[in-house]
Amino acid sequence: MPTRLTNFFLRTLREDPADAEVTSHKLLVRAGYIRRQAPGIFAWLPLGLRVKAKIERIVREEMTAAGAHEVHFPALLPREPYELTNRWTEYGDALFRLQDRKGADYLLAPTHEESFTLLVKDLYSSYKDLPLTIFQIQDKYRDEARPRAGLLRGREFTMKDAYSFDVSDEGLDASYQAQRDAYERIFTRLGLEYVIVQADAGAMGGSKSEEFLHPTPVGEDTFVRSAGGYAANVEAFTTVVPDPIPFDGLPAPVVVDSPNTPTIQTLVDLANAEVPRPDGRDWTAADTLKNVVLALTQLDGSRELVVVGVPGDREVEMKRVEVAFAPAEVEPATEAYFAKHPGLVKGYIGPWSEDGPVLGEESATGIRYLLDPRVVDGTEWITGANVDQKHVFGLVAGRDFVADGTVEASDVRDGDPAPDGSGPVEIARGMEIGHVFQLGRKYAEALGLKVLDENGKLATVTMGSYGIGVTRILAIIAELNNDEKGLVWPAAVAPFDVHVLATGKDQAAFDAAERIVAELEESGREVLYDDRPKLSPGVKFADAELIGVPKIVIAGRGVAEGVVELWDRASGDRVQLPIDGVVAALDAD
Amino acid sequence: MPTRLTNFFLRTLREDPADAEVTSHKLLVRAGYIRRQAPGIFAWLPLGLRVKAKIERIVREEMTAAGAHEVHFPALLPREPYELTNRWTEYGDALFRLQDRKGADYLLAPTHEESFTLLVKDLYSSYKDLPLTIFQIQDKYRDEARPRAGLLRGREFTMKDAYSFDVSDEGLDASYQAQRDAYERIFTRLGLEYVIVQADAGAMGGSKSEEFLHPTPVGEDTFVRSAGGYAANVEAFTTVVPDPIPFDGLPAPVVVDSPNTPTIQTLVDLANAEVPRPDGRDWTAADTLKNVVLALTQLDGSRELVVVGVPGDREVEMKRVEVAFAPAEVEPATEAYFAKHPGLVKGYIGPWSEDGPVLGEESATGIRYLLDPRVVDGTEWITGANVDQKHVFGLVAGRDFVADGTVEASDVRDGDPAPDGSGPVEIARGMEIGHVFQLGRKYAEALGLKVLDENGKLATVTMGSYGIGVTRILAIIAELNNDEKGLVWPAAVAPFDVHVLATGKDQAAFDAAERIVAELEESGREVLYDDRPKLSPGVKFADAELIGVPKIVIAGRGVAEGVVELWDRASGDRVQLPIDGVVAALDAD
Repeated sequence: MPTRLTNFFLRTLREDPADAEVTSHKLLVRAGYIRRQAPGIFAWLPLGLRVKAKIERIVREEMTAAGAHEVHFPALLPREPYELTNRWTEYGDALFRLQDRKGADYLLAPTHEESFTLLVKDLYSSYKDLPLTIFQIQDKYRDEARPRAGLLRGREFTMKDAYSFDVSDEGLDASYQAQRDAYERIFTRLGLEYVIVQADAGAMGGSKSEEFLHPTPVGEDTFVRSAGGYAANVEAFTTVVPDPIPFDGLPAPVVVDSPNTPTIQTLVDLANAEVPRPDGRDWTAADTLKNVVLALTQLDGSRELVVVGVPGDREVEMKRVEVAFAPAEVEPATEAYFAKHPGLVKGYIGPWSEDGPVLGEESATGIRYLLDPRVVDGTEWITGANVDQKHVFGLVAGRDFVADGTVEASDVRDGDPAPDGSGPVEIARGMEIGHVFQLGRKYAEALGLKVLDENGKLATVTMGSYGIGVTRILAIIAELNNDEKGLVWPAAVAPFDVHVLATGKDQAAFDAAERIVAELEESGREVLYDDRPKLSPGVKFADAELIGVPKIVIAGRGVAEGVVELWDRASGDRVQLPIDGVVAALDAD
Repeated sequence: MPTRLTNFFLRTLREDPADAEVTSHKLLVRAGYIRRQAPGIFAWLPLGLRVKAKIERIVREEMTAAGAHEVHFPALLPREPYELTNRWTEYGDALFRLQDRKGADYLLAPTHEESFTLLVKDLYSSYKDLPLTIFQIQDKYRDEARPRAGLLRGREFTMKDAYSFDVSDEGLDASYQAQRDAYERIFTRLGLEYVIVQADAGAMGGSKSEEFLHPTPVGEDTFVRSAGGYAANVEAFTTVVPDPIPFDGLPAPVVVDSPNTPTIQTLVDLANAEVPRPDGRDWTAADTLKNVVLALTQLDGSRELVVVGVPGDREVEMKRVEVAFAPAEVEPATEAYFAKHPGLVKGYIGPWSEDGPVLGEESATGIRYLLDPRVVDGTEWITGANVDQKHVFGLVAGRDFVADGTVEASDVRDGDPAPDGSGPVEIARGMEIGHVFQLGRKYAEALGLKVLDENGKLATVTMGSYGIGVTRILAIIAELNNDEKGLVWPAAVAPFDVHVLATGKDQAAFDAAERIVAELEESGREVLYDDRPKLSPGVKFADAELIGVPKIVIAGRGVAEGVVELWDRASGDRVQLPIDGVVAALDAD
């Protein structure tokens, strides 16, 4: 049965919704696919539900083909398991929490690691039961601070989340690879170009993590890639560490008055004028050591100052710092912190003073000091002398100062060497479309998931977690497939295969359209039929362009001469066809 | 691709779950269909999800065939619309309420009248857009005081809820009828016998309401039906009101000491001995008037006493009283209430005293007084004289006392006359499987849903609401289709069409089973294949009986002689068939 516009729940809108920031949001609302109910919370109208169901079907088919079994967990879950993994606290304000009538704590699940782990613990007990991968397609909740961008970052959203369970690390590798392969097939079927990038896995206690990014200049994520095949998001990029340099023959550090050095360049100029290097090389901004004071707040609420030293030609990139210190929260230290630490001379902070070490757990201040990996032993630096209006020149790492460790805090730049030796990287932007993740044994340990192994001993299970945001994917496809007239769906996820328009006042056009609709349905195609009488062709064309079904058939004035038009929404091409030639033309397409 | 038990997420259990009260709950957990996550909250395992999907498909097909369009609303909704309809308060403790990070109030929707109404208001503006029926299949939340009975009454549950929108009452009748017809088709396809009973619609402000009940002695709902076709749930049953009787010639009331009348019978005996009727008829229990004091708590928290008078041979039935006074809460008055009302003499309460009226808004106490509809003018009663140890005999309704109205408070009994004149009713029990409901204009008025009518005037839309509990239906089907060995699914909703078992240690049996599985799949059937090696036939048989797929094929020892067994789960019949004759036998079935 075709869907007839005379009897369909649809109202297209000519105006963009006032709250919409991104194209997909604007068009999905205007074309009658979704409707906002609250910030980040949407209702699905019939057109939107059809597209969502098609994406879900593709995901489900590929999950099943990869040997995963479908289950379905509640959205409303008790607090206890999330307490055991600390996520009840770690999730912070992003977790929707509530109480039932008895005062018991519940949450709306943002992901279901705990539930899946406990279910397997509940039912399985032997290595013979594994490997196992189970998945669900389910509505999740995250109380985003600023829900925006429509479905790209909603507070209620549909996800496919899968979890694998293995006894051995090799088993996890195989399960991970099977999901990774399935993701490649899913995104290929969805027509979504992708790059698989290394992602940071450390904070979650896992061992390996990759993101599927769709490369696009309007993407919200930054990643780097080399011509030699390296790809990582900036949080996961690791700096190539130079070899250390022998200290022999390096001059002693020199403290110099530096009252008029408001910029790094003025400081460098002063260095080149006052403390020329014995080997004649100029000092550059890359030889200055910038010490940035950060305040960390741990999950238990405790606070700590940490100083991060990076070359002066680099910036401290907060996204990388946040990953490095996760799950602690990081913010630049405020004046209040400085007031509490008179040992730090603001504007002239450095690890060394003529009175001894200033930074580091063993120093006078006791403040933890972490360095960019480029600051290897034997490198010489210009930095603050920890005295007002004085800098020290030629301070040698490893000789004059030591740190408590290194940290990946600097920004990554075009031309930085890839850590795998595959050449210089370039910075690119993309949208996250999937995430595969080796959780390892973190959740199994927290929740006590063990099975008997081949030797009859209890072994903690190792897990993987694999996510695709179904509603986010839908928005990304809409974001990538549109023009000024409206949506342009790829065939695999279009709400209908063909949109048939009967135009004009001539009954013959409507009769021809009815015949074509019947033939199209006979051929197995899903048809949206605009059978609305008394509407101008222009209104019908505009609706068809806005809705974005890939193939449009127009039965209008030409019917008198036995022809209709076949209109390709993407290319805009229109060709005339005999009335009974539509199916054949589409078959040949 | 068949589902192989060597690689399927399933663990059957031999023991009933400790918290399970009903058969469906026990069997669905033991057979690996569902798993409890919290009180009234369940996870769906692969088998359960398959059955659920089949029920949903049948519901979806019939909704679509009835012209309804599918949409999908969020579970998490803002407070405001529910405030406008007063349901934020009316729902009481059964509503899950929460706040987002900004402190805004949200709820987990128990049903979506408000959302549907606002969506139509948002998009439609003309009578030409109507009639419209839209539906969703969606997870809902109700914080039941005592979640029990597994899926029969969960706190998270899946419902199909549909809503119709019309301009005229006739339109609503037609939309209502279309849904009612669709429900008949759905329950027929699901193999669920049903009775359509009148239900109470008053409290919700609606005009007409019917429930689909599955008649079964273990049902939790009571309904009445007559041989002549009347059917109603007890809450909706209305008493046939007798004609009034002329007062002429009725004797004056007589007050009698009645110290030793602990029961109604002793009171009746006293009456027959002390105050014989002039016409010689005996007094009976039906001539006594029992006055029951109830405490009402209104939604705004205000409290009120009300006295309900019913014939002494009837009981006050709280379910009927609750409907009559809804949305107020009703409870029997406690001693504390009596203490506050010294005008009421406990054990001897009556509407009349020698000093004047005792009950009624115009009386000395001012307490509202409502009567069973059988207490018509001219009927004579034995009741309390409102003096300790005294009753009054021959008190005539309408002459000696008046009430503030009538109330349907008495229990309904076998033999009571049906209100439509179709003869005496019998009491029966059933399980609610669906509910269709003419909401009328209540929600449209509260939320301002108006459209321009044919005359260009704004008209408030009239609505219907139509619900089927998908997960409840699944539990009911399980509750009705089982034996001591396990589940016995009807073919329409079974998780698989055929369950093939390979038994024994002979590879030939497994080879034959593989061939049969391939042929069954070729024929379009969904197959569960028990290919587990090294398991005794007994274990496999027990699992097959527990899981309850309707047709079971056993490839075992007989394979050597070229035969397998076809086992009908429901009848228990087993027949031998040639190995290549399974599909033909099932086709012929």
